[in-house]
Amino acid sequence: MTNALAFANNRREKNLAELVTFLSLPTISTLSAHRADVQRGAEWVAENLRALGMEHVAIMPTGDGAGQPLVYADWLHAGDAPTILVYGHFDVQPVDPLDEWRTEPFEATIIDDTIYARGASDMKAQILACLKALEALVQTNSLRVNVKVIVEGEEEIGSPHLAAFLRAHKEKLKCDVALNCDSQMAARATPSIVYGLRGLCYFELRVQGPAQDLHSGVFGGTLHNPAQALAELIAGMHDAHDRVTLPGFYDDVRELDAAERAELSRFPVTDQAWAHAAGVTALWGEDGYTTLERTGARPTLEVNGLLAGFTGEGSKTVLPARAMAKLSMRLVPNQRPEKIRAQLEAYLRAHAPATIRWELEQLAGGEPVLLNRDSRFTRAAAQALQETFGVAPVFQLLGWSVPVTNSLNDELGVDVVVMGFGLADDGTHGPNEHFYLPNFYRGIESYVGFFEKASST
Amino acid sequence: MTNALAFANNRREKNLAELVTFLSLPTISTLSAHRADVQRGAEWVAENLRALGMEHVAIMPTGDGAGQPLVYADWLHAGDAPTILVYGHFDVQPVDPLDEWRTEPFEATIIDDTIYARGASDMKAQILACLKALEALVQTNSLRVNVKVIVEGEEEIGSPHLAAFLRAHKEKLKCDVALNCDSQMAARATPSIVYGLRGLCYFELRVQGPAQDLHSGVFGGTLHNPAQALAELIAGMHDAHDRVTLPGFYDDVRELDAAERAELSRFPVTDQAWAHAAGVTALWGEDGYTTLERTGARPTLEVNGLLAGFTGEGSKTVLPARAMAKLSMRLVPNQRPEKIRAQLEAYLRAHAPATIRWELEQLAGGEPVLLNRDSRFTRAAAQALQETFGVAPVFQLLGWSVPVTNSLNDELGVDVVVMGFGLADDGTHGPNEHFYLPNFYRGIESYVGFFEKASST
Repeated sequence: MTNALAFANNRREKNLAELVTFLSLPTISTLSAHRADVQRGAEWVAENLRALGMEHVAIMPTGDGAGQPLVYADWLHAGDAPTILVYGHFDVQPVDPLDEWRTEPFEATIIDDTIYARGASDMKAQILACLKALEALVQTNSLRVNVKVIVEGEEEIGSPHLAAFLRAHKEKLKCDVALNCDSQMAARATPSIVYGLRGLCYFELRVQGPAQDLHSGVFGGTLHNPAQALAELIAGMHDAHDRVTLPGFYDDVRELDAAERAELSRFPVTDQAWAHAAGVTALWGEDGYTTLERTGARPTLEVNGLLAGFTGEGSKTVLPARAMAKLSMRLVPNQRPEKIRAQLEAYLRAHAPATIRWELEQLAGGEPVLLNRDSRFTRAAAQALQETFGVAPVFQLLGWSVPVTNSLNDELGVDVVVMGFGLADDGTHGPNEHFYLPNFYRGIESYVGFFEKASST
Repeated sequence: MTNALAFANNRREKNLAELVTFLSLPTISTLSAHRADVQRGAEWVAENLRALGMEHVAIMPTGDGAGQPLVYADWLHAGDAPTILVYGHFDVQPVDPLDEWRTEPFEATIIDDTIYARGASDMKAQILACLKALEALVQTNSLRVNVKVIVEGEEEIGSPHLAAFLRAHKEKLKCDVALNCDSQMAARATPSIVYGLRGLCYFELRVQGPAQDLHSGVFGGTLHNPAQALAELIAGMHDAHDRVTLPGFYDDVRELDAAERAELSRFPVTDQAWAHAAGVTALWGEDGYTTLERTGARPTLEVNGLLAGFTGEGSKTVLPARAMAKLSMRLVPNQRPEKIRAQLEAYLRAHAPATIRWELEQLAGGEPVLLNRDSRFTRAAAQALQETFGVAPVFQLLGWSVPVTNSLNDELGVDVVVMGFGLADDGTHGPNEHFYLPNFYRGIESYVGFFEKASST
């Protein structure tokens, strides 16, 4: 066991205590009411980086101060050895529906081997694991690579200012490879390296019917109800094969080759386990693809929210003036958000009836990405994971979007290693988010191994 | 001019002041937080009845105390003359969306000839007009009919306890005819007598997908999104001819005869005016029927509310666990609510996919009603309206539901005269509800005339 590993193993209790504190900060980036909490989150991360021995720690503005702050730090004493840029985020999703949480979202609760809190899996445990690995290496004088760290505060709203930030600080962030810690394992005991992430297009579609809410007994049956019109538009967005009907939606989709389909089929999660994790009795999805392909390799269209009329207690006989849907598409290579937006607009122009008006606002967007599967750094990561878990990692395509992965790739022109320790059923973005604590410690161990091996390969 | 009319004309200022006070009471029956306000509303009505000279004034419980209170009063000194039972309600609809009100909903605001407040049109001005007519007759010793009054507090939630109340107090409420003041005119200067009211079935449909909200990037595309499934179910509830697709929905519908269609076509509102009142550029509705037929003589199905997933500010990439719709049907003779419920259940059993679960809760229900168009009391009403407005009233079918009309018909076995002074574009149930004040005074005058003529015909 290396000195750094021994150091990390001796600090488990302290590291866990830090995680609990980190999770107590309600760093919800999408709600303006939490802006001060996000700032406190940045300060907490900065202080943690300073304490572990990182240098040039700075809380930096994004979007000319309009964005949420980003924390930078570095340690650059390894001479000609490679420079690794670590990426993470400290912001989290909103907590509603609050009444479905069994514990307080911002009071971390440990039950058996699991810690419950908003952000536990996405991604405070993951980024802290990486920082604690750096601490072990710095404090034992065994860090043999140069390290730069950026921890941002607006990943959960689509990292709107990050690409510009990377562009503006290209020299400062120069590196040989980036490490994105926001990821997940194939299963509790099966690590993974992610080589593809889906992109995202997120919209709010607003349908307007009458000028204001009307009495459904007076006007019902004589006007096109905007909630009904919205339902009709949404219903038409999938066909009988559960394929998305936006015109040209699949035109640019990269099809998997046979080798990739074979590799993905090694994934140790059955349909039955997937359905169980989701709490459904029957799965659903695009004809001709497996569940894992549907979630990683195929594009989707989801309704994330619906709102119209009266939704309170009891009955109100209103004909609503308007209806709203939050809609998002997950994109795969080589789809591009701007084309998808044009396709959605074309669909709406073709199908929205003259009886209603509609408007579309894009709230977030990010490109899908496909990464280099065979670099010296990918090999270092694979070795570290294998040594820690005793199992070779599976190479997988991830269903979600971490726009920074693309930005690191595009703006800095470097490979990105995506290695993290969350699990698909951690409840991220929903109530009762949690993280399996043994993988917090194994995560630290894996990151220590990665930094060690990255210097010598 | 009769003494009673002169009395009423001299009291306009005082009557308006009473209306303003009545409108300041937030008597929202569907929200349990307003229960005490509804009670205060009952007390205000009782005090008003006492002050105008009615007797045996009592606030009576409904539903064994579980319902909202009802106010009773009578004046029975006309010997063998007919007994008229006056019906009204003092409860109102909720006020959301509050930010669309240009004035405070419970601070009545008079602009030119119009008074703005929740309940102004539905139906505080109308029932108060009738009470002020009674006051004029009682105070001038010119009331020549016996009068009983009931003013209930749960019409806006479908009068769930009223039928039982009428049944339980059948002797006490014995009368020769009932007068329902909750109605509307054909136009500002054209009075009407309503001879048919639609019934109502109101449901909450809840669709359950996964056990809890999930990350749309992880599970999206592999599960049937319940918001999408709900949209698909709703979209299927109308066909290409804008007809409702519930199996058997039109089987029991009474078709209009040629004479009725001719009478309805005399209604002084054009499609253009109707669209303008609603604030839409294009109307919509069942093929083969006019706008007025669609709103009064044909059944409809409306979406009154939609809720799923994340509906706040910004974007949240959630795959929602559940989706909810408030759905209601307006029924015409001879449709029956219990059959409609069975048809909706049959539709859902036939069309809901195995990928989701659903449950249906009925929140309100009421039968449609068709009234006697040619009784001595209808004639008295028509004469009074013609004398007040100088125009013969049009006989019309009303689109909404006033379940009590049926209950009065069924439980007490009497004819009901439906005569009121609201207008279709008064904004009832929506923001900026208002009432045209000249028709408050003409309403008082018409009710005075009706009571006078009802004794002598």
